[in-house]
Parts: sequence; C-alpha cells; structure tokens
Amino acid sequence: MNALGRHILAEVYGCDRAILNDPERVERILVAAALESGAEVREVAFHKFSPQGVSGVVVISESHLAVHTWPELGYAAVDVFTCGDRVEPWDACNYIVEHFRAQSVTATETKRGVFAGVGVEAEVG
Amino acid sequence: MNALGRHILAEVYGCDRAILNDPERVERILVAAALESGAEVREVAFHKFSPQGVSGVVVISESHLAVHTWPELGYAAVDVFTCGDRVEPWDACNYIVEHFRAQSVTATETKRGVFAGVGVEAEVG
Repeated sequence: MNALGRHILAEVYGCDRAILNDPERVERILVAAALESGAEVREVAFHKFSPQGVSGVVVISESHLAVHTWPELGYAAVDVFTCGDRVEPWDACNYIVEHFRAQSVTATETKRGVFAGVGVEAEVG
Repeated sequence: MNALGRHILAEVYGCDRAILNDPERVERILVAAALESGAEVREVAFHKFSPQGVSGVVVISESHLAVHTWPELGYAAVDVFTCGDRVEPWDACNYIVEHFRAQSVTATETKRGVFAGVGVEAEVG
C-alpha cells in the first residue's frame, strides 16, 4: 500500500498565551517550521480574531501547515500535512510545539491518499 | 469532555479530473462549501502546481477547509475543521464530494481541543 502523504493532527496544550495571541509571531513560527522540515512555502494566509485567537495556514509545495489558537486556554490545534519522502512533517510539528513553549502534546499521524497500486484510483479504502 | 472543534479528514477518490486541475473551480467549490455549512470566510489561498494539481485553503471564522488534488489519480485530500456548534462540517464535506463528482469517499472525524472541563488547559490527553 502506497500513501501520497502523511497528516499530523497535534493537540498542543499549555502554550505561551502571549505567543498564541500574536499573529505575526505565530505566522513566523509556522513559516519557519515549514522551512525547518525542508518544505517550500507557496502561500501564507493568517487571520487575527477579536478579542483573541489566531488562525493561519501555510500552503507548501508538499501540502500545508495550519494552526488555530485559543490564547485564553493556552491551546493550539496544529496540523501538518506533507506529501512525498523529502519533507519530514514531525520536524515541523516539533518546531511549532517548541516555539509555542507547550507543556503537553498529543499527536496522531494519518496516511493520506492510500492506493493499492499505481494507477488504481477508485474503490480504495 | 468538551471539544472545541471537529476535524474531518476525507479521502475523495474517482473525482472529475478536469475539475481537480482547475484552480478557480476548486476554489469556488471550497468557498461555496464553507458558505453552505454556515461558515464565515476570512482568507483564501490557492496554488496551482505544474504540470498539475491544486492546493488551497479557506480560513473561516470557525477554523478552515483545505484541499490538495492529484488530477492524474482522480484523488483529492480534503479536510474540514470547524469549531463551535453553529457550523456543520459534514455539510461542507458533502458539498465538496458532490461537486468533485467523486465515486468513493472515506472520511473520519476527530475531536479537536478536548478539555475535561472549563478552565482546564493543561495535562489533558
């Protein structure tokens, strides 16, 4: 079975609340995480919510990184989706966790685009 | 246990390949899916790859929708993450599946931001 990509969903708790509420800092961390993992950044879209919270996505050649923060809870929902073998999604995930100064994390990796063989595109799963 | 959000990862197979390779059409479908589910669109970032494939994200007030397409395989990796009770992520997911003219889909829903109670922000999971 071949998978096109790997998708990490990370629950990131006990983060630095000031960082989670600073859209420029969150964006810098996400972009740096993408580069750290060897990804190529294509598009960046971030949004600051009122009174608090940041949502943002970095589209990379190899898929995307996304974050949604709840500063009031010290919590961030992070997902890192990469395809191909060249980029290591856990490097990006670990970079984000470290730079958010998280106290605890739970994360799962899901295979995306699983095909039984080359050229088989339907009736899979 | 309270969850802040719900995150659907959908493997969408047997799609219309022309649609999957048309960035404007993919973007229109994703934005319409967001609106269909009752979400508020905040930011949109799409990218067309050479020779084929589209990646894109719609940041909504309630989190995000993302898509990555492999037209040559008729496959799209879709994820829909919504928080709050007002927006139904499956409405958006089903809209995308229908408008990509998919033949088969497998999808899972994951709870995001699970807290034992209000005000408990660390040592969870």
